[in-house]
Amino acid sequence: MLISELSERTGTPSATIKYYVREGLLPAGERVGGNRTIYGEEHARRLKLIRAMLEVGKLSVAAVRTVLEALDEPGAPVAHAFDAAQQAVSRSAVPDVAPPSPSALERVDAVVDRAGWADCGDNIGRGIAAQVIDAFDNAGFPLPDDYLDSYAAAARLQAEADLTTVGVLPDPARMTELVVVGTVLGDTLALGLRRMAQAVVTSERSMQ
Amino acid sequence: MLISELSERTGTPSATIKYYVREGLLPAGERVGGNRTIYGEEHARRLKLIRAMLEVGKLSVAAVRTVLEALDEPGAPVAHAFDAAQQAVSRSAVPDVAPPSPSALERVDAVVDRAGWADCGDNIGRGIAAQVIDAFDNAGFPLPDDYLDSYAAAARLQAEADLTTVGVLPDPARMTELVVVGTVLGDTLALGLRRMAQAVVTSERSMQ
Repeated sequence: MLISELSERTGTPSATIKYYVREGLLPAGERVGGNRTIYGEEHARRLKLIRAMLEVGKLSVAAVRTVLEALDEPGAPVAHAFDAAQQAVSRSAVPDVAPPSPSALERVDAVVDRAGWADCGDNIGRGIAAQVIDAFDNAGFPLPDDYLDSYAAAARLQAEADLTTVGVLPDPARMTELVVVGTVLGDTLALGLRRMAQAVVTSERSMQ
Repeated sequence: MLISELSERTGTPSATIKYYVREGLLPAGERVGGNRTIYGEEHARRLKLIRAMLEVGKLSVAAVRTVLEALDEPGAPVAHAFDAAQQAVSRSAVPDVAPPSPSALERVDAVVDRAGWADCGDNIGRGIAAQVIDAFDNAGFPLPDDYLDSYAAAARLQAEADLTTVGVLPDPARMTELVVVGTVLGDTLALGLRRMAQAVVTSERSMQ
């Protein structure tokens, strides 16, 4: 299809499409004689993915590029795509604070133990969770273990849903694509539903 | 205490403290003769709260100001503090996309129904969740109901933990303070633990 059709089908202005090509987010179209360039279905799909990451996931152009590079590695397994997506997606979420304290890291490891989770190794989430524990401490609200355990149980429910949805896809390329989309968009879905649930529980407990 | 002590106790440079006062985030200290200004315990507490919101919650200075204004309204009940914190904290999370489609909003309402939640009214999370549903659709990965229900169950677990932790505080001022801190920091905690749980479930299901 021509850029005008790609633009119409994806709701993306032609100038924006050209910008994504220049920035290396989208492969160039194929030049066919004169100054006509044609684009395929894979351009349309990739374009939707880029827009979801930029507009809903609020990633930077650089972060989107990193995620797409991981996606394009030939034969990348699901675990690798998760790791790359997590690294790129999470970088903007890493708190601008000192590295986590050893005691906060120990508390995260204790949560993992109590939840019966396998060792998560050097997952980027471990440091983030520990930094949040430190931040609550510093703000004068040390978090009880119960609180951390409830949040771990919630995270487990989310991850099970994530992997189940990925697992029913027939095609490894689509699986890694969903891993990326899901990592980015799932955070925002979780945030929205958490707001609603807070309102519901506040009202149920009559903490008006 | 003098600004030097406030600086040392909170790990905040004096210039930063003065900047927060100029920006209206921190009340001015009390001038006592000459050019000496003294600060109280409430300055130290407020300063920690400001830093947690800026550095861990990644709020803008303007968003922090809005949250603090809500916090300072005399006699503000917990539900009101939640609402104000949610509005301010969530604004930066609202996707830069078209308003949610009516069908996505209907799907969110159906999730609420199935979960047996009370009506959430015009909670800011409803539109955010619906926008995410639209974004998954647009990216070619329509979300199954099961997925949404799992995320709602996770949100419920988080909100119960949030409100339980708030509920044990004896003092309404501390309660609203924790509502704000918890709304901001809880999102980041949830994000960190979700990353870890994804790694655990991926490994358990051998989706290497």
